Amino acid sequence: MHIGFIGLGQMGIAMAHNLLKNDHSLAVHNRTRDKAEPLIRAGATWASSPAEAAYEADVVFTMVSDDAALRDVTMGELGLLNGLSEEAVHVSCSTISPDTARQLAQEHQHRNSRYVASPVFGKPEVAQAGKLWVCVSGETTAKEDVRPFLNLIGQGIFDFGDDPGAANVVKLSGNFLLGCAIEAMAEAFTLGEKNNISRTSLYEFFSTTLFASPVYKNYGKLIADEVYQPVGATPALIRKDMRLLLDEAQKALVPMPFADIVFQQLTATVAKGKTDIDWAGFAGEVSEKAGVVRPKS
Amino acid sequence: MHIGFIGLGQMGIAMAHNLLKNDHSLAVHNRTRDKAEPLIRAGATWASSPAEAAYEADVVFTMVSDDAALRDVTMGELGLLNGLSEEAVHVSCSTISPDTARQLAQEHQHRNSRYVASPVFGKPEVAQAGKLWVCVSGETTAKEDVRPFLNLIGQGIFDFGDDPGAANVVKLSGNFLLGCAIEAMAEAFTLGEKNNISRTSLYEFFSTTLFASPVYKNYGKLIADEVYQPVGATPALIRKDMRLLLDEAQKALVPMPFADIVFQQLTATVAKGKTDIDWAGFAGEVSEKAGVVRPKS
Amino acid sequence: MHIGFIGLGQMGIAMAHNLLKNDHSLAVHNRTRDKAEPLIRAGATWASSPAEAAYEADVVFTMVSDDAALRDVTMGELGLLNGLSEEAVHVSCSTISPDTARQLAQEHQHRNSRYVASPVFGKPEVAQAGKLWVCVSGETTAKEDVRPFLNLIGQGIFDFGDDPGAANVVKLSGNFLLGCAIEAMAEAFTLGEKNNISRTSLYEFFSTTLFASPVYKNYGKLIADEVYQPVGATPALIRKDMRLLLDEAQKALVPMPFADIVFQQLTATVAKGKTDIDWAGFAGEVSEKAGVVRPKS
Amino acid sequence: MHIGFIGLGQMGIAMAHNLLKNDHSLAVHNRTRDKAEPLIRAGATWASSPAEAAYEADVVFTMVSDDAALRDVTMGELGLLNGLSEEAVHVSCSTISPDTARQLAQEHQHRNSRYVASPVFGKPEVAQAGKLWVCVSGETTAKEDVRPFLNLIGQGIFDFGDDPGAANVVKLSGNFLLGCAIEAMAEAFTLGEKNNISRTSLYEFFSTTLFASPVYKNYGKLIADEVYQPVGATPALIRKDMRLLLDEAQKALVPMPFADIVFQQLTATVAKGKTDIDWAGFAGEVSEKAGVVRPKS
Repeated sequence: MHIGFIGLGQMGIAMAHNLLKNDHSLAVHNRTRDKAEPLIRAGATWASSPAEAAYEADVVFTMVSDDAALRDVTMGELGLLNGLSEEAVHVSCSTISPDTARQLAQEHQHRNSRYVASPVFGKPEVAQAGKLWVCVSGETTAKEDVRPFLNLIGQGIFDFGDDPGAANVVKLSGNFLLGCAIEAMAEAFTLGEKNNISRTSLYEFFSTTLFASPVYKNYGKLIADEVYQPVGATPALIRKDMRLLLDEAQKALVPMPFADIVFQQLTATVAKGKTDIDWAGFAGEVSEKAGVVRPKS
Repeated sequence: MHIGFIGLGQMGIAMAHNLLKNDHSLAVHNRTRDKAEPLIRAGATWASSPAEAAYEADVVFTMVSDDAALRDVTMGELGLLNGLSEEAVHVSCSTISPDTARQLAQEHQHRNSRYVASPVFGKPEVAQAGKLWVCVSGETTAKEDVRPFLNLIGQGIFDFGDDPGAANVVKLSGNFLLGCAIEAMAEAFTLGEKNNISRTSLYEFFSTTLFASPVYKNYGKLIADEVYQPVGATPALIRKDMRLLLDEAQKALVPMPFADIVFQQLTATVAKGKTDIDWAGFAGEVSEKAGVVRPKS
Repeated sequence: MHIGFIGLGQMGIAMAHNLLKNDHSLAVHNRTRDKAEPLIRAGATWASSPAEAAYEADVVFTMVSDDAALRDVTMGELGLLNGLSEEAVHVSCSTISPDTARQLAQEHQHRNSRYVASPVFGKPEVAQAGKLWVCVSGETTAKEDVRPFLNLIGQGIFDFGDDPGAANVVKLSGNFLLGCAIEAMAEAFTLGEKNNISRTSLYEFFSTTLFASPVYKNYGKLIADEVYQPVGATPALIRKDMRLLLDEAQKALVPMPFADIVFQQLTATVAKGKTDIDWAGFAGEVSEKAGVVRPKS
Repeated sequence: MHIGFIGLGQMGIAMAHNLLKNDHSLAVHNRTRDKAEPLIRAGATWASSPAEAAYEADVVFTMVSDDAALRDVTMGELGLLNGLSEEAVHVSCSTISPDTARQLAQEHQHRNSRYVASPVFGKPEVAQAGKLWVCVSGETTAKEDVRPFLNLIGQGIFDFGDDPGAANVVKLSGNFLLGCAIEAMAEAFTLGEKNNISRTSLYEFFSTTLFASPVYKNYGKLIADEVYQPVGATPALIRKDMRLLLDEAQKALVPMPFADIVFQQLTATVAKGKTDIDWAGFAGEVSEKAGVVRPKS
């Protein structure tokens, strides 16, 4: 089968590598070509535009940074819709607003191609290992047709029904739950620290007992150590996701006090210029408010 | 060895049963005797007061509902301090304020007996299975001496150092983290529901992937199903714990916005008279604010 | 001078009446003609479209409900820009987003007409009395040219500089400050009530001493009496304004915890279907959370 | 008549001076005598203890910093209760918890003396001018008997009934409303500033129109100028009041989200060591979170 892949950030590169398995052929496109070189060396071909990446593909993946970028690579002059064959499927993995997903699904329908919302959960190293969690929603047969490809990038696929926006609501909710876990740990660890209980001992207890889950283990360690490198995703990027979540909450008339606080913390982090750290670094806002001063390293 | 046990609520009964193992002898006391009957049938003896339960015991456990109750069973006229031998150890499992723990530890020291803070995590059924998580703090040799007994009630013991108050800070922090997980899921599930994504499908996804931990599995199910029976702990009881946490935050000068919100939700739950449900039922405040109306069953 | 007036809600009608003074001639337009009848009887002429209302006017006022409505009456096919003379001034009184104001100002500039942002503060009865507070921003000479007209509707004019968006930031900030005063009084009055101190006695003390200002007097009385009729502005309408404020806060990177809470309260009010009350009625959310039950009247 | 006065801080000194009018004789006491010198020069006599200040007084005023200090000067070994004549009235002006007021009222009743809760509103310069606002509660005849004295220190007296705790609930509520006005202005002014609207122009508009009241005028100026000197009351002192308010809210089962936020801001201010500024300086937390950096002067 022939696959197109558009968007070669940290996540996209890792996912595209896994799609090269099983003798699939792969055409890749990115705004800047240099990111594509390792994939080309591994057997992929370069496509000079999204439309070219989609040309004669059975399935085309997109993994870009926001709604505007996805609209552009999909509906722009050289967008994938201008290359995609009828019946081919666009597997849209970016974290975007549910409404953008719904609109793009309609655009595809008008042209007899298909759209499957497929946002994913996992850090870049999880993507490399092909162990992402994949949420899908959209038309049933399209979802069935792309399942073998999704199995190459993920360890599990969860189906949230027909609405192309649904999987994106789930993705935004997941990032929200993650942000809540970060804030909660930051508050608890800071309270402990001020009571002479080390952040690490709290982390070790909770992450191996009641909260023994990937999120508390991985993010909890960052918050315990207060080391926010390397950058999985920046505060600005995830702040955009929280904004999309709050937009949905606003439309659905759901007051979400925790979401407001996480958004405030990310806003403060960005406002203070802490932009080159992992987003979990917003935990630093909690200790700062508590007057905890760290020795400069 | 001879053990005393004071406080036979749901948790205390379950813990006391596990202490009857290994040929230990057990004297039990409770405000009302009827709770003690199953234990007496299983081989325990009845003690008519805390002092009597402590008489000639190598170790005496307490598991009562709050600071006032613990002070009473410890320092009251018929309190355990009036029965406890020198060198014997008081294993204090209740969820109380760190300062009360510190004061009681001092009282024991004045009388040459010993105090180990040993708050536990786990619902009554976990206590029955002897699978509690136990946090300890206090004097080193005392902690060593009671370890064999703690192994009968718990699956793991975590040591938080010399300060008798430390383990209680951890316990309060744990209940706080739990409350945060409940609020976060309540917000996410309500947003999903209003987007026609079932609460159950969100629960199943998150509790088996990123958040696959005991807390998200157990409490998440309550929140997904909106069934808050049977009552593990009432809103009023855990609200008391959150109050103690906020008192610590106040003393330590740590602003805790999430803790404030969880406390507000529990306050509203109690104020509205929803007192005979599990405390996770404060999740209902979220859907109520979102205008979700449930058909009366 | 000849004046056009577009948008005859409660506020618009009252303002238009005051513009009929001083022998000005007035052409009025509204989506539905019946609202215009009292003005026509008072000497105004009916314009069948915004363009017609703007035709040969020296100045044209708009007072509509939101950004979309203002864009439509300004730039739509029969919009005022298609009738407005060069050099004429559009006095834009609606509560809209600063960015919409900036865009409309540019549109006018392209056509050699002028735009003055002139949002106003005051309830309908204040508008009738010609006692509004008017905030203006935009091009200096345009502001000077319309000052005599603004003096007919207001008791004071405050100039916030050249940026056509500035006056709208001030208007949104004013509604925000108002919302904060409402929430604060609702919390204080409810605490008082639960301590057997009547809401009215608190209201009377604070509104005649430390907080003796129009806002605390007027809105405080509604909150003390818990009578939210007649409707000055609905919860949905002001919720829209708070949304615009939060959008500005998001762009400017300002965490605003009070704004988040006021928005949550308005969202809950709308979500529960309480739509036909004055927006100050969101104060009811506070007493509801506190479990205060009112006898049904 | 003979008056005792205990507690000569900034407020107490100013109030005591006004009581010297009308030929009343005045005995004053303070922890440190030097504060009393100006009053002694003006005709007051020095009392070496609270008991001595109360001796043969018709009425004794107290104005101290917190509950503990008031208990001490009232019920301590040399406390005023050991000097006060039967039928004499203790006019208690400190900002304390309602429960302390109720307990002290009972103590007086046991000894046939009387207690009137009389907390006051106003900065030191207002106290000097005899223009405080006075809230009273307690026994009716006692309130009547002290009214002539209260008229010397205040411009208005408001009666909140029989409960000796009621006036203190009102006082705590007033400080809460004030804190809310500070936070609200801080948020609005920061949003304005980031939109190139000067803090001063916003202040001038709002404090002369919709919010033209003493609180918005006085505190608003501090927040606009960001000058928090001289110190009217420290952040730590008013944080204590907010804590008392939250204690009342907790007992009365009233969720108060605004109070939680104001308390968080004051906590952060104290935690960061900003202790020698007026409490309105917690407004700085808002601009700090927004990443606003001020040039060091």
